[in-house]
Amino acid sequence: MSKQERMLPVIASTSECCEPMVSEALSPQGAAELARAFKVLGDPVRLRVLSLIAARGGGEVCVCEITEAFDLTGPTISYHLRQLREAGLVDCERRGTWVYYWIVPAKLAGLSQFLDPSEVPAEVGG
Amino acid sequence: MSKQERMLPVIASTSECCEPMVSEALSPQGAAELARAFKVLGDPVRLRVLSLIAARGGGEVCVCEITEAFDLTGPTISYHLRQLREAGLVDCERRGTWVYYWIVPAKLAGLSQFLDPSEVPAEVGG
Repeated sequence: MSKQERMLPVIASTSECCEPMVSEALSPQGAAELARAFKVLGDPVRLRVLSLIAARGGGEVCVCEITEAFDLTGPTISYHLRQLREAGLVDCERRGTWVYYWIVPAKLAGLSQFLDPSEVPAEVGG
Repeated sequence: MSKQERMLPVIASTSECCEPMVSEALSPQGAAELARAFKVLGDPVRLRVLSLIAARGGGEVCVCEITEAFDLTGPTISYHLRQLREAGLVDCERRGTWVYYWIVPAKLAGLSQFLDPSEVPAEVGG
């Protein structure tokens, strides 16, 4: 196998988007999808909003509660929540006056698995 | 305990930077440090460079090999490697003509642990 093939394999589709990073190098397509999610995580406010939702243990959090927890305007919070939702990290539902948010565990698990170095093999392509 | 205290606890210092996100909400300080690392991961080329290094299974990769694997200039690859190094995701050493890179497993493990939803408690602050 050529060096190029070994380094940049096309990752087969799986139910989740992410193979552990350490098991094989990343395809351009896989990298683009992962980078999009990490970019959304690369903002302190969005991380805190996500963390607040995640700390509810899989339960829902009202947007009213999120807005109350930060010294930011409603539109700013809504912008960050939209970014998180478009990246697939959270989902939401409107019920009456308020929108309720919850984390998407499968998406977070995929990102976590990608970064997990514990599966480092003794030697890969070395 | 007030709602504010419950949502934004100061995370005690640990050997790693990251508590699992789901166990408690994130402090502003913790969020800033994590966001910096995720922002660096939020670029497809940097993710592929990191993945290439990680796929070596904890071993070293020569910068010459990294440059060869991408259709990018040396300075561009160097820029991305510097970003990865400044975020603590990789480390390097110059030996002779070339610089050799390897991943920092502890940093990756911290980020992975932060995103791991498997520790979701039945109910937190609900």
